Amino acid sequence: MSKMRANVFLAKNKIEVREVERPHAGVGEAVIRITLTTICGTDLHIVRGEYPVKSGLVIGHEPVGVIEELGEGISGYEIGDRVLVGAITPCGQCRACLSGHLSQCGRGEGYEALGGWRFGNSINGAQAEYLLVPNAQANLAKIPPELTDEQVVLLADIASTGFGGAESANIRIGDSVVVFAQGPIGLCATAGAKLMGASLIIGIDGDETRLQMAKKMGADVVLDYRDADVIAEVKKLTGGGADVTIEALGTQQTFESALRVLRPGGTLSSLGVYSGKLQIPYDAFAAGIGDHRIVTTLCPGGKERMRRLMETVRMGRVDLRPLLTHTFSLNQICDAYDLFGERLDGVLKVAIKP
Amino acid sequence: MSKMRANVFLAKNKIEVREVERPHAGVGEAVIRITLTTICGTDLHIVRGEYPVKSGLVIGHEPVGVIEELGEGISGYEIGDRVLVGAITPCGQCRACLSGHLSQCGRGEGYEALGGWRFGNSINGAQAEYLLVPNAQANLAKIPPELTDEQVVLLADIASTGFGGAESANIRIGDSVVVFAQGPIGLCATAGAKLMGASLIIGIDGDETRLQMAKKMGADVVLDYRDADVIAEVKKLTGGGADVTIEALGTQQTFESALRVLRPGGTLSSLGVYSGKLQIPYDAFAAGIGDHRIVTTLCPGGKERMRRLMETVRMGRVDLRPLLTHTFSLNQICDAYDLFGERLDGVLKVAIKP
Amino acid sequence: MSKMRANVFLAKNKIEVREVERPHAGVGEAVIRITLTTICGTDLHIVRGEYPVKSGLVIGHEPVGVIEELGEGISGYEIGDRVLVGAITPCGQCRACLSGHLSQCGRGEGYEALGGWRFGNSINGAQAEYLLVPNAQANLAKIPPELTDEQVVLLADIASTGFGGAESANIRIGDSVVVFAQGPIGLCATAGAKLMGASLIIGIDGDETRLQMAKKMGADVVLDYRDADVIAEVKKLTGGGADVTIEALGTQQTFESALRVLRPGGTLSSLGVYSGKLQIPYDAFAAGIGDHRIVTTLCPGGKERMRRLMETVRMGRVDLRPLLTHTFSLNQICDAYDLFGERLDGVLKVAIKP
Amino acid sequence: MSKMRANVFLAKNKIEVREVERPHAGVGEAVIRITLTTICGTDLHIVRGEYPVKSGLVIGHEPVGVIEELGEGISGYEIGDRVLVGAITPCGQCRACLSGHLSQCGRGEGYEALGGWRFGNSINGAQAEYLLVPNAQANLAKIPPELTDEQVVLLADIASTGFGGAESANIRIGDSVVVFAQGPIGLCATAGAKLMGASLIIGIDGDETRLQMAKKMGADVVLDYRDADVIAEVKKLTGGGADVTIEALGTQQTFESALRVLRPGGTLSSLGVYSGKLQIPYDAFAAGIGDHRIVTTLCPGGKERMRRLMETVRMGRVDLRPLLTHTFSLNQICDAYDLFGERLDGVLKVAIKP
Repeated sequence: MSKMRANVFLAKNKIEVREVERPHAGVGEAVIRITLTTICGTDLHIVRGEYPVKSGLVIGHEPVGVIEELGEGISGYEIGDRVLVGAITPCGQCRACLSGHLSQCGRGEGYEALGGWRFGNSINGAQAEYLLVPNAQANLAKIPPELTDEQVVLLADIASTGFGGAESANIRIGDSVVVFAQGPIGLCATAGAKLMGASLIIGIDGDETRLQMAKKMGADVVLDYRDADVIAEVKKLTGGGADVTIEALGTQQTFESALRVLRPGGTLSSLGVYSGKLQIPYDAFAAGIGDHRIVTTLCPGGKERMRRLMETVRMGRVDLRPLLTHTFSLNQICDAYDLFGERLDGVLKVAIKP
Repeated sequence: MSKMRANVFLAKNKIEVREVERPHAGVGEAVIRITLTTICGTDLHIVRGEYPVKSGLVIGHEPVGVIEELGEGISGYEIGDRVLVGAITPCGQCRACLSGHLSQCGRGEGYEALGGWRFGNSINGAQAEYLLVPNAQANLAKIPPELTDEQVVLLADIASTGFGGAESANIRIGDSVVVFAQGPIGLCATAGAKLMGASLIIGIDGDETRLQMAKKMGADVVLDYRDADVIAEVKKLTGGGADVTIEALGTQQTFESALRVLRPGGTLSSLGVYSGKLQIPYDAFAAGIGDHRIVTTLCPGGKERMRRLMETVRMGRVDLRPLLTHTFSLNQICDAYDLFGERLDGVLKVAIKP
Repeated sequence: MSKMRANVFLAKNKIEVREVERPHAGVGEAVIRITLTTICGTDLHIVRGEYPVKSGLVIGHEPVGVIEELGEGISGYEIGDRVLVGAITPCGQCRACLSGHLSQCGRGEGYEALGGWRFGNSINGAQAEYLLVPNAQANLAKIPPELTDEQVVLLADIASTGFGGAESANIRIGDSVVVFAQGPIGLCATAGAKLMGASLIIGIDGDETRLQMAKKMGADVVLDYRDADVIAEVKKLTGGGADVTIEALGTQQTFESALRVLRPGGTLSSLGVYSGKLQIPYDAFAAGIGDHRIVTTLCPGGKERMRRLMETVRMGRVDLRPLLTHTFSLNQICDAYDLFGERLDGVLKVAIKP
Repeated sequence: MSKMRANVFLAKNKIEVREVERPHAGVGEAVIRITLTTICGTDLHIVRGEYPVKSGLVIGHEPVGVIEELGEGISGYEIGDRVLVGAITPCGQCRACLSGHLSQCGRGEGYEALGGWRFGNSINGAQAEYLLVPNAQANLAKIPPELTDEQVVLLADIASTGFGGAESANIRIGDSVVVFAQGPIGLCATAGAKLMGASLIIGIDGDETRLQMAKKMGADVVLDYRDADVIAEVKKLTGGGADVTIEALGTQQTFESALRVLRPGGTLSSLGVYSGKLQIPYDAFAAGIGDHRIVTTLCPGGKERMRRLMETVRMGRVDLRPLLTHTFSLNQICDAYDLFGERLDGVLKVAIKP
């Protein structure tokens, strides 16, 4: 039985690059040889024991690679095709998928909360030499030859999520939009708001490097919450309240602020992963009758989503390479986790090359 | 100066039918002689001092009447026309109205939270012999001759709100819908869900009379929260979670339950008026990444809304008269408040005739 | 090699029940034993040579049956399960399907016009003892035990199409809707408009039996185009033009009338299959600037669609059995085609039992 | 009675700058002193007798000016305020307006086809020293001090229309869009598609100057229909058909091509004004069952629309000044019509200064 190296979660605060069994493709599956992947904030939660996965799991969910094996029932692909696979791998054939809720895929059955997220969660993930792709027909997105791995790897999760936050809010030409937190997801939400025609984009963070990057990604105004009275400033800039606010961190404070600066009838698009009780202050919520909308989005996946996102890159609409600040080999991945986890050296995203 | 009788809010727990000045129509306004009105749960909040209005205000916001005066700038109406006026009276000409957010009307300017609700809130209301209607061109809805006052009075607020809860949720043919609380608003939400093609409608309450009425208004199954494990029962009936839930009370418990029985990707449509902090349990909310939507609705108003609702009554799609359980004269309105406030005698809504 | 009987298209106006090879399930496929099917207007077009299919094809696309074989890669089903399969069998995994355009399925690749329609078109169909179901995971819808075959067979195509016409038009509570032609599809569009909350539904046809059935399915007013000035009458009944019109025949005249009675800003939902040039009279179209919308719909398919439609039947929202006017065995199917093709004996739909 | 100069339509091919009565503001109205206006293609149709207006009418519908008089019932404005007024002046208070169909405004009553277009159509227009603005509360949009007249004048009609074509098509991030004809409206549709996140924008025209301008406004690829096989080329570039096509001319040929290059399930957004019968070839239309949508748009108006468009200019999202190729005084307007009508000297739009 052939082996491969992979980053394995062992226990809280314990990961290790180990030799594990190399996967093989069954019916409807494919195996890809990973050429580039990255680390996500969610992976940090897993390593820190804040999100439970079983010991022995290979983690990571942002894969770029080359097709190595194709199982029965897959057509239109060849061994050697370069592909991007989304972090979310919907089956396309269950009640949730056929209703358009691809991220809540029930795999042949009904709905399963977050069921579309399998890599590095319920099955082995992408921080490895090889990756088994389930429901491959729905999830292998061929990479146009003119695009490099580095140009597309961030589409698998953070761009799909960030743009998704803008899309779920139905941003319209002329909208004012505020994005709370300018980490990788928030920066992509900022870029998404710009792509959709928002006329005023305000980026909020407390990190000067990230605020500078926010300007590069499309923010017209950036506010450092350490200096500014964010609520008052946004209300002034938007003439009373923003049309859309996007929460991209997952804390009570950012959620609450996102509600406080929203105009009546506006939409709060929430991308953060929350823990504990989230509170909605009734005053900011107009006692529940302000015609507000709160929408949540889990990273949209599937090969068509990836194809569309690659088109935006190919045609020069967005360039995410500035977010890929550091590069590591798979063997050095523990160092990469340290750097990323402690936000050292202005890190935004790290490239991992097996 | 001519006078009229009206129900005046004086102080907490103190209302009185008094002689006050009769209004006259300025530019863009009309005066109607009230022929039928009713009491709303919101009026109770006002009387109890839970929602602040200024002393001396005539309260009530559900008017049916006959045009008595027409100010300059109004066309297409004549003195004597029977009209229904919505609880919400948008100007049609401000930023909010021109964006379709009629309930958050800013009256010529931008957005104002709940700004479309003026009767018995920021200007004199409908529990009186005469009522000044602002922005009359946008708000006087002629009543078809074949409809009685009793058939249309509940459209002004509760039907518009209840149906609005179903509409904001975008209920589709075949959806499963749960309506929490079967008071007047919840009963109308139940009727609205039925009108929009929901295939399974579950009504929840703790009052047997209301549960019986819920069946009459369209519920397929009713659950008494005093006996049933509502969460478990709904999950069983819906195969894992409802497509849409409607909150029609305004409490932490109903809101939370409405979230707990929602499937991933589902919509919680909130109609209740909340006070204090509302909490979103992160487990029921799939940590914020279940593709859930929470939408809120303030009673849609304006003459076109009223026209549409009257058409649904005229064509026999819905009959709200069973909800009008009691009748009082304006002079007896304090008795009506007592009955309504204490939920005596199976009361749902009371008819007030000046 | 085992054999089965099936209705085979041989040449224009030539069909025959013959022995053909019985299908077997490959990867991702299933075979069902047909227990009930029917004949569609489209089958008539095929037999008459108006829609080309290759000689030797088994026709028919409305199957109810029992699972006989399950190929590799299918889970959640057992031999013997009773299932309904939609006329359209999307793969769920191509660009079109993942974008929600299931009827224009490209089977693993991009879009293919009408590509989701395979039964009796590009592969063997349902007028047979056995049927091979492609992409079975996405297309086998289990029938609730309380429903008979007769209650669900018409959901496969005509109800899904007719309701789809109402849904594509986004019918809202209080809309006025006109349905042109009250054949099986038009009758289901009428039922769909009723289900979605239209307050006024006008059914048009020239056949008294169908107009009577239209009333049963939800029409408030029926107009016989042989007697009535349909355009004038509809404009009068709707106060100047309908909010929505549905074309359910596929002729220049019905399409044009559907446009003439539409109000500015209204939606024409077209279900008909047209041949030759279709003309849009510029006057009825307000020279192209009346904010009109013309939407077209091919029968939505897939197991989730079928599940939802079965729920509407199970919960008593609609009963299509009155449309199933005649019953034939598979051996008698040529007689059934004659009756159906010549519209004898008040026929609407025929049940075919293998 | 004071007088003013204005461009008056007298008869087919006969316009003249004359002294006419200066307007005064009645209830709900305002008078503005025009500081900048322009000529629209529709004005050419009027002058050529192709669109009928009554003799003696002042034409033009794209006004920038300064408030000179305010009638009763208007609040929030002062004499001297600089304002932009949309070509379409909805009342905000009729059935159509309250339903969101502002361009089909019935002025207090129901729907009227194109009823929102009044300037230079049913009432005196903007090619004059002064202009009476009806429903002024809904239609006077204050110009931010940092914007010049030249920066905003094209928002009144062509940008609102062109962007509207992109908006009605619901363009999404990653869509491929083809815009047929790159006149002023088409160029704005191109800019609108770019603003909304289309990843591939193809502009079609037969005029080299306009194709160059199309690139400046956002087209990625331009095709000259005189050299290229547009249908084949677009199909190749889009991998089988565009997600959205926009028709911006109003001819059978552009409409038909816009349908031929559309993928199944795609949207044709039509902006052209058609005359005579428009034909839909059934092959390009997939016989009516390709899930295609055809949507039409009349220039969205009202002060909120103008405010939003001015925000896109103020924040640097779009700059329409390159389209304003020539400047004339009101006295020279007949020369301007000649130049514009004969498309001399690379003219796109002309500035007219009273």
